[in-house]
Amino acid sequence: MKEIIKVGIVGGTGYTGAELLRLLAAHPGVELRIITSRNEAGTAVTDMFPNLRGHVTLKFSAPDEKALAACDVVFFATPNGTAMTQAPALLNAGVRVIDLAADFRLKDARLWQQWYGMFHACPELLKQAVYGLPELNRAAIKNARLIANPGCYPTSVTLGLLPLIEQGLVDEQHLIADAKSGVSGAGRKAETSLLLGEAGENFKAYAVPGHRHLPEICQSLEQAAGKKVALTFVPHLLPMVRGIHATLYAKLKDNSVDLQALYEKRYAAEPFVDVLPPGAHPETKSVRGANVCRIAVHRPPNNSNGNGDTAVILSVIDNLTKGAAGQAVQNMNIMFGLDECTGLDVIALMP
Amino acid sequence: MKEIIKVGIVGGTGYTGAELLRLLAAHPGVELRIITSRNEAGTAVTDMFPNLRGHVTLKFSAPDEKALAACDVVFFATPNGTAMTQAPALLNAGVRVIDLAADFRLKDARLWQQWYGMFHACPELLKQAVYGLPELNRAAIKNARLIANPGCYPTSVTLGLLPLIEQGLVDEQHLIADAKSGVSGAGRKAETSLLLGEAGENFKAYAVPGHRHLPEICQSLEQAAGKKVALTFVPHLLPMVRGIHATLYAKLKDNSVDLQALYEKRYAAEPFVDVLPPGAHPETKSVRGANVCRIAVHRPPNNSNGNGDTAVILSVIDNLTKGAAGQAVQNMNIMFGLDECTGLDVIALMP
Amino acid sequence: MKEIIKVGIVGGTGYTGAELLRLLAAHPGVELRIITSRNEAGTAVTDMFPNLRGHVTLKFSAPDEKALAACDVVFFATPNGTAMTQAPALLNAGVRVIDLAADFRLKDARLWQQWYGMFHACPELLKQAVYGLPELNRAAIKNARLIANPGCYPTSVTLGLLPLIEQGLVDEQHLIADAKSGVSGAGRKAETSLLLGEAGENFKAYAVPGHRHLPEICQSLEQAAGKKVALTFVPHLLPMVRGIHATLYAKLKDNSVDLQALYEKRYAAEPFVDVLPPGAHPETKSVRGANVCRIAVHRPPNNSNGNGDTAVILSVIDNLTKGAAGQAVQNMNIMFGLDECTGLDVIALMP
Amino acid sequence: MKEIIKVGIVGGTGYTGAELLRLLAAHPGVELRIITSRNEAGTAVTDMFPNLRGHVTLKFSAPDEKALAACDVVFFATPNGTAMTQAPALLNAGVRVIDLAADFRLKDARLWQQWYGMFHACPELLKQAVYGLPELNRAAIKNARLIANPGCYPTSVTLGLLPLIEQGLVDEQHLIADAKSGVSGAGRKAETSLLLGEAGENFKAYAVPGHRHLPEICQSLEQAAGKKVALTFVPHLLPMVRGIHATLYAKLKDNSVDLQALYEKRYAAEPFVDVLPPGAHPETKSVRGANVCRIAVHRPPNNSNGNGDTAVILSVIDNLTKGAAGQAVQNMNIMFGLDECTGLDVIALMP
Repeated sequence: MKEIIKVGIVGGTGYTGAELLRLLAAHPGVELRIITSRNEAGTAVTDMFPNLRGHVTLKFSAPDEKALAACDVVFFATPNGTAMTQAPALLNAGVRVIDLAADFRLKDARLWQQWYGMFHACPELLKQAVYGLPELNRAAIKNARLIANPGCYPTSVTLGLLPLIEQGLVDEQHLIADAKSGVSGAGRKAETSLLLGEAGENFKAYAVPGHRHLPEICQSLEQAAGKKVALTFVPHLLPMVRGIHATLYAKLKDNSVDLQALYEKRYAAEPFVDVLPPGAHPETKSVRGANVCRIAVHRPPNNSNGNGDTAVILSVIDNLTKGAAGQAVQNMNIMFGLDECTGLDVIALMP
Repeated sequence: MKEIIKVGIVGGTGYTGAELLRLLAAHPGVELRIITSRNEAGTAVTDMFPNLRGHVTLKFSAPDEKALAACDVVFFATPNGTAMTQAPALLNAGVRVIDLAADFRLKDARLWQQWYGMFHACPELLKQAVYGLPELNRAAIKNARLIANPGCYPTSVTLGLLPLIEQGLVDEQHLIADAKSGVSGAGRKAETSLLLGEAGENFKAYAVPGHRHLPEICQSLEQAAGKKVALTFVPHLLPMVRGIHATLYAKLKDNSVDLQALYEKRYAAEPFVDVLPPGAHPETKSVRGANVCRIAVHRPPNNSNGNGDTAVILSVIDNLTKGAAGQAVQNMNIMFGLDECTGLDVIALMP
Repeated sequence: MKEIIKVGIVGGTGYTGAELLRLLAAHPGVELRIITSRNEAGTAVTDMFPNLRGHVTLKFSAPDEKALAACDVVFFATPNGTAMTQAPALLNAGVRVIDLAADFRLKDARLWQQWYGMFHACPELLKQAVYGLPELNRAAIKNARLIANPGCYPTSVTLGLLPLIEQGLVDEQHLIADAKSGVSGAGRKAETSLLLGEAGENFKAYAVPGHRHLPEICQSLEQAAGKKVALTFVPHLLPMVRGIHATLYAKLKDNSVDLQALYEKRYAAEPFVDVLPPGAHPETKSVRGANVCRIAVHRPPNNSNGNGDTAVILSVIDNLTKGAAGQAVQNMNIMFGLDECTGLDVIALMP
Repeated sequence: MKEIIKVGIVGGTGYTGAELLRLLAAHPGVELRIITSRNEAGTAVTDMFPNLRGHVTLKFSAPDEKALAACDVVFFATPNGTAMTQAPALLNAGVRVIDLAADFRLKDARLWQQWYGMFHACPELLKQAVYGLPELNRAAIKNARLIANPGCYPTSVTLGLLPLIEQGLVDEQHLIADAKSGVSGAGRKAETSLLLGEAGENFKAYAVPGHRHLPEICQSLEQAAGKKVALTFVPHLLPMVRGIHATLYAKLKDNSVDLQALYEKRYAAEPFVDVLPPGAHPETKSVRGANVCRIAVHRPPNNSNGNGDTAVILSVIDNLTKGAAGQAVQNMNIMFGLDECTGLDVIALMP
C-alpha cells in the first residue's frame, strides 16, 4: 500500500479552502496535518465550517514554516501574492507546492505584474511551475514540484475550446467566451456587491474592460495552437452559489467537420471531462460538488435556413471543484502516483 | 381631458397578464372592463394574484365576444395561436388589438408556420399588423389597428444591436446574441423544468438548436439593415424570476468609431432606452418592474494588448415589463395619442 | 392645493434609504432637497442606485446642518446612534424628524442602553417621541415633532397580535413570535454572513438568546394590553431579499371567539392592513414593494381531532416598505395632513 | 466479507428516488439491480439525472414483480398509496421492503384513511411495519421486514422534541412546531405553486388547517411520552431547494433543568444526531446532502429580564437525506447488519 501523504494547507478560511477540506477529509490517501490562518489561529475548523463536524478535528494554527516543511505537499488557498513569498522556502525543503491562487499561472512575469498590479516575488520559479490542467499538461504535472492550479473560468473555457484549437479548425483571432459564474467564484469576501441583497435575483456582466483570466486562457490556447489567439472574454455574475457555465463561440473554417466526434475522441480517456450526447444542454447543477467538466457541442442556425458557420460549445464545471479544489486534488494524485480519481468520485448533488 | 380608454384582456392568468393588470390598474387613462379566462371564469382576479387586492375588483369571466367588442382595445395575453382566431372579428368591430403572443410577429406566414408548428388562421392580417417596437416603428404604431407586441428576447437584442446595424458598422453576417432570462419569461406553466427544485441554483442554455425568437430578431435587424443578417442566438435560463440580460457581440468594420456617442445619439429622444456611461455594466435589478432598457457599450481587449475589434453590447430589460406588458401599454399610449409615458413611470424595485 | 413639503434625508446609502428615495421620488407632495452622506459626498445618487436613473438627480452631499434645518422634515436612514445626536438641533429649528433607526423607539432610556450598548444622547426626547405605528398611535402621530419609526419585525408582529391583546383574549404570558426575514432587513452591510454564498440556499435562526426587537414589541403590546406581557421571539434569516413573515402563536382563553370577525373589524378602516379570507396563507411576494401588512387568522388542529386552543396568526410585510420607508412616508403624510395614502398606492411586484 | 445486498427501487423518478440513487451508487455494500418506472421504462437513469453520468448505467424498466422478488430489499420511492398494493407480495417472497412514502407510517388504519383520503390496501401489515426512526426504534428496525421510512418534517420535529418528551419535562399539551422546508420536500411535481416564478423570492405558510405529518409526529411523541400529546404544527415553504429547519417551542415544567446536558447525553451515541454547543444556531446548509440532524437548544428571554420558561429547540436536516433517502439507507444498513454509517459518511456541501 502507498504511504499516506502528509498535507498542509495555508489559508483555508475561504471557499476554496472549505472545498479542499471537504475533499481531503474524505480522501483515503492523505493525512491533513496542518491548516494555517493568521486571523483564525486557535479556532476549530468546524466552528467556521460546521458541515465538517465529525469529519475534521483540526484547529487553524498560526503560520509555521517548520510544520509546513514537514509535509509532503502544501496547498495555498490564499489571496494572490501570498504563495509566491512562501513557496521558495518550501520547495527548497523538498515540499511540493500547489497554489490555488494566480501567483504562478502566467509564464511571463511582466504580463503577470501588469494584470495583478504587484511585483512578482520569485519570477525565476515561473518556468518550472506547471500549469495544472491535467487534460493539457498531464505529463509535466507528474514530475512537477510546483503547480499553478488553473483559475475557474480558464478551466471551463480552455477545456471547451481545446479540441477546436488543437486541430486548427476555427478562426482563432475571433474567439468569444461568454462566461457566467456563481458568486462563490469571487471568494468569501465581505464585499457589498456579493451580498444576497445585491447579487440575489440579479444578473450582470462585470470586468468587461479586462479580467485577469483573459491572459491565462490565451496562454493555454496559444500553447495548444502554437500561435497567437485573440479572445473576447466577458464574465457575468449568476444569482447562485456554485457553478460556471461558459458559452463559447468560434467561427468554423470548414463547416463539414464532425464536432461531436472530435470532442468525444479528444476526451475519451479523460476521467473528468464528459462529452454529452448531440443536442444536449449541460446544466451547472449536474456538476455541483463534483470534479467534472461536462461539455456539449452545437452548430446552431443563424437565420431561418439551416445551421450556421459558428460552433457553440457549452461547458460547465463547479467553480470550487473542477475549477479549484477538486482539480488541485487531481493534480496531487497525479504528482504522487495515485490513481487520478482517488477521493474524487463524489457524485454531484442534485437537486 | 382625454376620454378614458375601455380595455379588455383575453387570457390574463399568466405572468404577462398579471403584469398587464399591475400596470393598467395604476394607469390614469384606462378603465379595465373585462378580463376573460375560460378556466378561471368566476374567480376573482385577486384570488389568483393577491398583490392586486385593493386595486382590482374584477373577476375573470368566460370568453364573451360581444363584451370585448365594446372595448376600445383588447390585449391578448394568451398562448400562441389564440389571438389569430379572435382578432379578425374584433378588428372588424372597430376594436384595436395588441397581441402579446407571437401570432402576428413574423411577416412571412410560411416562416411563422415553420417555427410555430401550426397553420396561421389569418395570414392576410400579417401585412397590416405592426411590430410594436416603438424605437423602430413608432410612426406605424400610431396608426396601427393591430399590434404584434415584440418578444422579450427580441426587445433586448434588437435595441442592443440597432444602432450598429442601422449604421452598417459591423459584420452583420456574424452577429452573436448570448441572452439570459429569468424563469418568468417562460410563463406560468406547470412544467418540471421550471420548478424551483430544478431551475433554482442552476444555470443552463436551452434551445440552442433553434429558438423561435431567432427569425423575429433577424426580421427586425434586416428591416434596419436593409439586407440579410445572420445571428447566432443562444438563450439561457437564469435562477431568478424577472430580467433579461443580452450580451451582444459584433465584429467592427472600423475600430475607430465612437460607439458611446453613437448609442447616446441614437437613443437621446427615447424615453425608455437608457444608455449608461462608458465602462458601466447594467444589472437586471435596475430595471425590475420598470419599462426601460438599459444599455452599455464596450470594446474589450481580446488579448494582452489593448482593445479588440469586437463590440460588446450589454442590454437589460425586465422581460415582463419592457419585454411584454409594459411595452404593450407603451404601444397603447402611442395608438391612442396619450403621452407615451403615461402609467409607465414606475421606478424599478431595488434591492 | 397643499404646499410642497421640503424633505431632507440623512444617510440614505443603505436599503431603507434606497426605498425612501424610490417612494419619495414618486410622491406628488414632496420635494427632495438634500440627501447627505459623509462617505459618498459628491456621488450621484443614481451611481449607487441605478434604478433611480431618470427619477432622481440629486447628489449625496456632506452633512450640512443649515441645509437640513431649512427642510420641513428630515428622515434619518442612518445606523443606530446617529439620529439622537442630530435630532435635538433640528427639532429646535422647527424641523420635524422621522428616525428610521432605533434611537427613539424605547421609552425607557435604561432599557435602551442595555439593549443597544451605548449611552443615549438625549433621553429627555424619548417622552415626546411618538412610536410611529399608525394603527396604534395615529392620533399622537398627527401632532408629533419626532417620530420613532418602528422596526420591521415589530411592525409585523405587533399588527399581528394587536387585536388579540387589545381584547385580552389570550394568555399574554406565553406569546410566541416565530419571525422570518429576507436579508435586506439586515441592511446593506458588507458582512460575511449576508453574502449570497452564505445566506443563499440556506436558512437559520439567529439571535435566539436575545434580539433588540423583543423589548420594542413588548412595549407596544403592553401599551395595548395595559399590563406586562411575555413573548418568546425567534428571528430567522430567509434566502431572499425582501419580506417578513411572522408566524404568531397565542393560547386562547376562550376557544369560542370568532377570530376572523375580530380581525376584520379591528382593521376595517385601516388602509394598509389587509385581513385575508378564512383559510388563507399570505405570501411575502404579495406585499413586495407595497406598504401593506396582510394577515390571516387560523386555529389549527393540534392532534387528530378538531381544532386546538392555539391561535395562529400569519402576518406579512415588506420589511423595507411597511417595515421601514413606506411606514415612514405614511407617518409623514399623517403629520402634514396629507391623505395617508399619498404616494403609497404602489402595487406589489408579482411575480 | 458481507454479501452484497441486491437492491430494487420502485419509482425513483422523483427527488427521493434521485437521492437514493446518489447514495446507493456510492454504497460499497449494495448492488443496484433494478429501478422501475411505468412512464420512463427504457429511459436511461442518467438521461433524467445527468449528475449520475459515470456512476449509474441502469435504465428505468417497466414494473416487474419477478425481478423485484429476486432482490434482498426493495425501496418504494413512489407516491402515497403505491407501496401498500405491492408490498404484500414482496414480503411473501421474502424481500424486505422500505417504503419512503406514507403508506405504513400510521398504526391506526382509520386515522390513516382520514388523513390520506383513500382506503388502506393492507391494514393488517400496519402492526408489523416498523417506523424507521433509528433513534427511536433501532432495536425493532434490526428485525423488521417492512419499514415505514419517516416523513421529513416528522424526522426533524421528533428528533428535536424527543429528549424533552421522554423525560416529561414540558407541557406536552401545548407543543409548537414551526417548520420550514425547501421545495424539494414537495417532490418533483409539475405544480404551479412550486415554480421558481412562484416560490422563488417568496415565503409562506401552507396547510395550516391540517397537514398529514401532524398525526405522524404525534404518534411518535406519544410513543415516547406514554400518553397523549397536543402539537400545533405549521409548515412553511422556503425559497430554496434542500433543507428543513424546525423551530420547536415547549413550555418547561421546571426552569432549572440543564437542557444542553440532556440533549448531549440523549444523543451521545447517535451517529447521525449532532448536538451543537450552547448558543449555536444550526443552518440548513451545514447538512445539505448529509445524513445528519443538527440540533441546538435555547431558553431565550421572553421580556427584558432574563430567560423565560419556554425551551426553543432548533433542528435541521436535509429533507432528502436524513429526511428521506439517507434515513432509508440507514435503515437498510441496520436491517442487514452492516455498520450503520456505511455509505452515509458524505460531508455536507458548503457553501
